[in-house]
Amino acid sequence: MTGRLTIAGLGPGDAALVTPEVSAALTDATDVLGYAPYVARVPAREGLTLHPSDNRMELRRATEALRLAAEGRRVVVVSSGDPGVFAMASAVFEALEAAPQWQELDIRVLPGVTAMLAAAARAGAPLGHDFCALNLSDNLKPWPVIEKRLRLAVEADFAIALYNPRSASRPEGFARALDVLKEAGGGERLIIFAHAVTTPKERIETFPLREARAEMADMATLVIVGNSATRRVGRWVYAPRRAS
Amino acid sequence: MTGRLTIAGLGPGDAALVTPEVSAALTDATDVLGYAPYVARVPAREGLTLHPSDNRMELRRATEALRLAAEGRRVVVVSSGDPGVFAMASAVFEALEAAPQWQELDIRVLPGVTAMLAAAARAGAPLGHDFCALNLSDNLKPWPVIEKRLRLAVEADFAIALYNPRSASRPEGFARALDVLKEAGGGERLIIFAHAVTTPKERIETFPLREARAEMADMATLVIVGNSATRRVGRWVYAPRRAS
Repeated sequence: MTGRLTIAGLGPGDAALVTPEVSAALTDATDVLGYAPYVARVPAREGLTLHPSDNRMELRRATEALRLAAEGRRVVVVSSGDPGVFAMASAVFEALEAAPQWQELDIRVLPGVTAMLAAAARAGAPLGHDFCALNLSDNLKPWPVIEKRLRLAVEADFAIALYNPRSASRPEGFARALDVLKEAGGGERLIIFAHAVTTPKERIETFPLREARAEMADMATLVIVGNSATRRVGRWVYAPRRAS
Repeated sequence: MTGRLTIAGLGPGDAALVTPEVSAALTDATDVLGYAPYVARVPAREGLTLHPSDNRMELRRATEALRLAAEGRRVVVVSSGDPGVFAMASAVFEALEAAPQWQELDIRVLPGVTAMLAAAARAGAPLGHDFCALNLSDNLKPWPVIEKRLRLAVEADFAIALYNPRSASRPEGFARALDVLKEAGGGERLIIFAHAVTTPKERIETFPLREARAEMADMATLVIVGNSATRRVGRWVYAPRRAS
């Protein structure tokens, strides 16, 4: 058996959003590694070993996946959404940089529907004009970097997708982000809270920024802040294609 | 028959990247509208009317789709990639804004794998840290807006995905964009040209910005410019998760 490492995106939650390419990789796998709630989305079967792990274990998980592939196993590392967007692909390449002996392994990255695309689709088309995506988790970068990027993103008049807006371990960051966004962009700009998108617990709510409160988000929320032209039409929210 | 309008993303090209949700919508459709090369990706069958149209016809196509749905047909408007990213969803909501009589129609947006995610997956993980996406088509916005956004994106140290970098009708814009990026970010930053990603003509090339020439891109190319920390590991290119 020749080993292979596949880094695959499971999409935002609904099985109907898993690509056939990813489904085929899971069918062929001997080992699936990932954060436990994502591994739980992979059906168990004979011949498949599931390796669920905690979050904040990304680098250890990536190294273990490389090691298993080097032993000849067909390994899939799963992420929610797309594996290249604030997920496991970068962690695997970091691990690979530290372990040159594995650089000739057969490695593939399989894209998926990342949360902001699913959230945008449910809301309408708030990413229909230029936009940016920021990870608000400050485990990986200091607050001044986040604040600077938020201010520049508003100055560029990007729509802004915010991943990981809020967790129990860092409740204040998102409140500060909302303050920066209101100060830089004004209170009339629209903000979309997309909670547990494409799952049975999905809830999509849109407000003007001045009404937004940090408690409206948790780690299962994807937030999209509109640009200066983002508007409502009926029950939908969209960014016009032309610059305002 | 009750009419319905579905705006669906076909992914970047490979049929294995079309979500089951989109495949089901196409199976159920009576009418499919879209830019001709995208409609050509939908298998013909009895009971399905294909309505291919030219590009730059987005608003007319959107209005026609709404009209057919209002007549009771099950209409799918197809885009390449994700319909919400520089594609048909915003055009449909623009048309809907001009036609309030259709605002109660059953409308759905089905997300897809947008080109930058597929390109990033093939290259490694260049979108693994904060990033932005710009449409370089200046049909829809003036050059000074594009230049301002490029400069702010470099200042924010975003990786930058560039859609529609170059076409026969506007050959100079991308050359100017490369000049701005080199001036603002320096010549050592990595740039990825992902041509016809996930199709048989796929070609992925990475250079330092100083070696990039406008002729390396055409309308089938998705360009990703790395941030200041983007680096190579073996044959891969990735953005480390931590801010540099």
